[in-house]
Amino acid sequence: MHAVQGRVEATLSRLLPPAEAIPARLHQAMRYVCLGAGKRVRPLLAFAAGELTGASPERLEIVASAVELIHAYSLVHDDLPCMDDDVLRRGRPTCHVEYDEATALLVGDSLQALAFELLARADIGTPQRQLEMVRLLAHASGSCGMAGGQAIDLSAVGQSLNQPELELMHALKTGALIRAAVMLGALCGAPLSEEAGMALDRFAKRAGLLFQVIDDILDCTANTATLGKTAGKDAAAEKPTYVGLMGLECAREFADNLSTQALDSLAIFGKDAQRLIALTDFITHRKF
Amino acid sequence: MHAVQGRVEATLSRLLPPAEAIPARLHQAMRYVCLGAGKRVRPLLAFAAGELTGASPERLEIVASAVELIHAYSLVHDDLPCMDDDVLRRGRPTCHVEYDEATALLVGDSLQALAFELLARADIGTPQRQLEMVRLLAHASGSCGMAGGQAIDLSAVGQSLNQPELELMHALKTGALIRAAVMLGALCGAPLSEEAGMALDRFAKRAGLLFQVIDDILDCTANTATLGKTAGKDAAAEKPTYVGLMGLECAREFADNLSTQALDSLAIFGKDAQRLIALTDFITHRKF
Repeated sequence: MHAVQGRVEATLSRLLPPAEAIPARLHQAMRYVCLGAGKRVRPLLAFAAGELTGASPERLEIVASAVELIHAYSLVHDDLPCMDDDVLRRGRPTCHVEYDEATALLVGDSLQALAFELLARADIGTPQRQLEMVRLLAHASGSCGMAGGQAIDLSAVGQSLNQPELELMHALKTGALIRAAVMLGALCGAPLSEEAGMALDRFAKRAGLLFQVIDDILDCTANTATLGKTAGKDAAAEKPTYVGLMGLECAREFADNLSTQALDSLAIFGKDAQRLIALTDFITHRKF
Repeated sequence: MHAVQGRVEATLSRLLPPAEAIPARLHQAMRYVCLGAGKRVRPLLAFAAGELTGASPERLEIVASAVELIHAYSLVHDDLPCMDDDVLRRGRPTCHVEYDEATALLVGDSLQALAFELLARADIGTPQRQLEMVRLLAHASGSCGMAGGQAIDLSAVGQSLNQPELELMHALKTGALIRAAVMLGALCGAPLSEEAGMALDRFAKRAGLLFQVIDDILDCTANTATLGKTAGKDAAAEKPTYVGLMGLECAREFADNLSTQALDSLAIFGKDAQRLIALTDFITHRKF
């Protein structure tokens, strides 16, 4: 895991514009939010999925970085005062606190564009395959994916959602990009059979939901220092969460079930799925 | 011109998610900012450039729409309180006024993603050509293009820029996307010779700068009702403009020179450039 995290850090550092390139303040801020912190869960998933298809690390580091750029942009925009209004992220001041709101807005916008530029520019497969990756990542990021999930999240404040509604929100808000990470990683290697592709997709959906349920649990059980972001803020903001919906004990049980189901989806891959299995375990038991 | 504008309106309406699709408020807001208004200068340029290479309208309407989506997103984000803080755009309340700030943020983010999804999804050329389009549009939108120009614009408030600095700012802020519109339009048809490609690129750069100089002139000579956006706001915000730099008379003269230079670049295309010539004339003499 550390090797992949280090590799992604180095790739992002190489692919982001240099801090001194004009406009320097914008480029510094882009590097500030992307480098030096973050669990890199999505890149880890991309690399682990790439193992199933024999993908090369040179390709995986590109798609992993593209997904991470989208994730980083979403955090910057989510933290803005008009959204979650948060001051702490990855243990550091959020972008608009360290720089300013306008810069944070442009940082997010620029990171999104850079993600697509990378996928279209680098040598990561046939042109058809690259286009499929652009389509997949764009769809996962937009109004029918991550951004759409944020919109549902906003409209849900103070409301009580039932479980299917909560699942839809999270399937978009967190799940879509996690699924994209897995699929893009796999697309870097040999094509999967239809059956294997569907199994991987099932895994990705379950792992995405699992990640979010654990996030909800940590939001109300871990402290701010451990999380590197403000703890307890979902409850404070009256946001619907799994813990709010079903209580802490049932949320833990639900997470354990999702974890088992995610692992079940991987059975078809045998020992090729070692890294995905380890990552599922990491996601289930993470403390931050 | 009206035929192209109507065609782009219909294409955008078809390609944007339906207003009732979940999350409905986000999709309504995306349609609100993209449909029913706007000069569609970038789509017009894409169609006119496509004439040089015999591009089909079916392809041109896609790339024109993708560029317009990027333009629409940039207006929504520019109008936000943390940027230009404007209440009027295209003769209507800005997105964050009609909806709210968080929705406006997500509208911009979603429109950007949709632009790249379109270019990667539609049948608008060989996969190689489509990838080139994604690269070109992403680069033109990001920190070394439009978003970078916005960052320079922000840092220039209250400062006096010299002419090369002002030109760099505008080359990025407005010029990059206008150039992308021209290039994407041409890429929908038969390949241009290297000489013709360079001539078209020169045209695009000059037309982009011309567009901005006229914008500066209109900002201080036209009224709000005619412009459909707040007049005089650059001066009020102490933003550097061509009128501020060289005075109104010299700015007009500079615009006329740019117009002549832009037309000169088109000489190589003979009468194939009729629509680009007419558009240059439109941009030079527009009143809003």
